[in-house]
Amino acid sequence: MRYKITISYDGTNYCGWQVQKNATSIQSLIQKALETTLQHQISLTGSGRTDAGVHAKGQAAHFDTEKSINQKTFPLTLNSLLPPDIRIKEIEPVSSDFHARYSAKGKEYHYHLHLSIIMSPFAKLYSHHVRDEFDLETFRKAAEMFVGTHDFTSFANVKIDAPQDAVRTIHKIEIVETEDGIKLIFVGNGFLYKMVRNITGTLLDIARGKISLGDLPKIFEAKDRKKAGKAAPANGLFLERVIYTNRGQ
Amino acid sequence: MRYKITISYDGTNYCGWQVQKNATSIQSLIQKALETTLQHQISLTGSGRTDAGVHAKGQAAHFDTEKSINQKTFPLTLNSLLPPDIRIKEIEPVSSDFHARYSAKGKEYHYHLHLSIIMSPFAKLYSHHVRDEFDLETFRKAAEMFVGTHDFTSFANVKIDAPQDAVRTIHKIEIVETEDGIKLIFVGNGFLYKMVRNITGTLLDIARGKISLGDLPKIFEAKDRKKAGKAAPANGLFLERVIYTNRGQ
Repeated sequence: MRYKITISYDGTNYCGWQVQKNATSIQSLIQKALETTLQHQISLTGSGRTDAGVHAKGQAAHFDTEKSINQKTFPLTLNSLLPPDIRIKEIEPVSSDFHARYSAKGKEYHYHLHLSIIMSPFAKLYSHHVRDEFDLETFRKAAEMFVGTHDFTSFANVKIDAPQDAVRTIHKIEIVETEDGIKLIFVGNGFLYKMVRNITGTLLDIARGKISLGDLPKIFEAKDRKKAGKAAPANGLFLERVIYTNRGQ
Repeated sequence: MRYKITISYDGTNYCGWQVQKNATSIQSLIQKALETTLQHQISLTGSGRTDAGVHAKGQAAHFDTEKSINQKTFPLTLNSLLPPDIRIKEIEPVSSDFHARYSAKGKEYHYHLHLSIIMSPFAKLYSHHVRDEFDLETFRKAAEMFVGTHDFTSFANVKIDAPQDAVRTIHKIEIVETEDGIKLIFVGNGFLYKMVRNITGTLLDIARGKISLGDLPKIFEAKDRKKAGKAAPANGLFLERVIYTNRGQ
């Protein structure tokens, strides 16, 4: 039987989702907890990796087991074997052709910007502190230009082989005011490696006047990562949910 | 000249506000930062103490100095000498008869209850995890009974000498839904030692049926700390602001 798990984690103390040598990854800790509980080897496949310091409120992964699982108590058992900064929120049986990565129809990421001069002690691990003033109207206009279907090569830290590889659709970038700043809500059919952080960094550069809004189409066309702004830091980013239905829920 | 400072802190790593032997207090770190900056001895008086693990978004304190202070840059200088979990938010000159404790007209505290079965990694240091179900309607009714002017001896961890010593007025207890639970907003003219945590613990006991709602008047009348519920943990509590104007702002 195949199972899907939904996971929340504070990425501060980890090398990221993916198993790495000589570093503690979230994937390896969950895999170990599953193996301890189910008493056999487990291969855990995530919807995608998250980098060191990136957080998740709704990461998804799948694994197979023939052991019987109680949906209500199994997350609690796993959580008792995991550090409190990693929590299994839910487990559900899925069909054998479900795949955490390939069945995903999209993802929702949130990026938190802390805009007051003094950083809140409660936000320091969960938002990027922007000390200098910037123009929110320009920021909004620039964000709109990322929505839609584009070749995102200039905003991805990956080597693109085939031209279609870098084409993604961003359904929306919503800008919501928070207690200390703003939160960017990205929903799209998929995001390339570091794409959300690179877009956020570029939006900040445009809003600060370091890159002109009029140059943005040229940056897209250049298909060159070096033309865009640098990545915003990992700690502001949250993988909010992985979308597996066509209705985007 | 007398100055008032407004302070935010994550209380997780401290023995509380007040200076204690062999432990790091928030007051002592701020006092040291002030002495380093102003180059003379400083006596820092807070609006009141907060316990180990209790947080603040708007603690207030005063001190005196003859040195000139730039309101805009002084908080940044102090913050550069403080750990990131303590932040000076604001400094302002006040009249010489202002006193952080005795001039206070009231306080606002928030208490966070995390009500979902699985604790969020992001809330674990900032809310009390209530795993068992309870009746929110009873909780609300019980909360209403604390509002108004009462003798709070049964809800205070202090020795009461004169009868009037334990009389306080709670202006409101508002119950607001949050992402993972509820937040209690307490506004009152003053709170006795551990009063907010003791009231919250008692509300939970009533909502869980451990104490009957009908017994609450008797608990007030008993003027005996042992009759009420035990204190809710420190980590859910935030000193939100100290109120110095009659208009409650």
